[in-house]
Amino acid sequence: MKIYLAGPDVFLPNAAEVLAAKSALVHGAGLTPLAPGDAQVDRSLSRFDQGCAISEVDEGLMNRADAVIANLTPFRGVSADPGTAFELGYMAAQGKAVFAYTNDARPLTDRIRSALGADDDGSGQLRDRDGLAVENFAMADNLMLHGGVARRGATLIVHDGGGQIADLGGFTQALVQVVAWRDSL
Amino acid sequence: MKIYLAGPDVFLPNAAEVLAAKSALVHGAGLTPLAPGDAQVDRSLSRFDQGCAISEVDEGLMNRADAVIANLTPFRGVSADPGTAFELGYMAAQGKAVFAYTNDARPLTDRIRSALGADDDGSGQLRDRDGLAVENFAMADNLMLHGGVARRGATLIVHDGGGQIADLGGFTQALVQVVAWRDSL
Repeated sequence: MKIYLAGPDVFLPNAAEVLAAKSALVHGAGLTPLAPGDAQVDRSLSRFDQGCAISEVDEGLMNRADAVIANLTPFRGVSADPGTAFELGYMAAQGKAVFAYTNDARPLTDRIRSALGADDDGSGQLRDRDGLAVENFAMADNLMLHGGVARRGATLIVHDGGGQIADLGGFTQALVQVVAWRDSL
Repeated sequence: MKIYLAGPDVFLPNAAEVLAAKSALVHGAGLTPLAPGDAQVDRSLSRFDQGCAISEVDEGLMNRADAVIANLTPFRGVSADPGTAFELGYMAAQGKAVFAYTNDARPLTDRIRSALGADDDGSGQLRDRDGLAVENFAMADNLMLHGGVARRGATLIVHDGGGQIADLGGFTQALVQVVAWRDSL
């Protein structure tokens, strides 16, 4: 059973170490980790073609995977890394099992309120200071992400890890769900 | 031929007007628009269940669509709306045709540099002020998004629309690509 490790962990200064730790936990649970890695890209290609090559490698890993654990901890703002969001949608559409966690315990609504404001526009709709609607669905992130996970039967793990991308507490709890899912098959 | 209209347009104060304008352009090209809409959700449900219901409706629209035009204009930060990223991945995984545009002409690397810094860490890797790696692939956004579109044959439209989500210039150019694709079938 192969588990794709989606998340912004790849951008951390100690990315290799964090992904190795995650992979070790997955191995320890009797599963096979598939971690994205950029090392094998031909550096003689143009930068754009290098990006496409990494996209191809990572999609290939997802095509081989049976499930994904997505790290939805906010990345450079109030929401998840868009690459991770793409991957979660990609796996969901293939009918693969989807699991996810965040290391930020605040609902999306609260994070937006803190960063950009969230006031009722008079119609019952919350809007930020730019007038953009603020989702208020008691979810950890955009409803396509949290709803997409919940509707497929998993509980998105909300772990109070101070928003730290590398914190393994949320990941470990998600892995427990993956093991229970595997054992139920 | 049904075209799903993905994007953060749904969060605009004039969302209905913008989506109607997009739908009119799609109709004018002889195609059928499928636009996400939240109006039909049962407000007696819990907020969480309302979010799940919208997720289900929007996935249903995507399941019926033949192609997507994704608005990847930055949303609340340096990157695309994560819901739109999820949807782009969802459509790509189904083998649907994927088209995308952004109304911000700057490459992702430049946006991150402006907002969060981007300095060489001594190894040739750019990192922002938090130490997170800055993608430098001459792409408009995360490589899974831009690479996922380019590898499937479309050109991600980069339109200088001042970063305005509602600007229809990028959308119109993407629609031209959709028509050419439809005519090629």
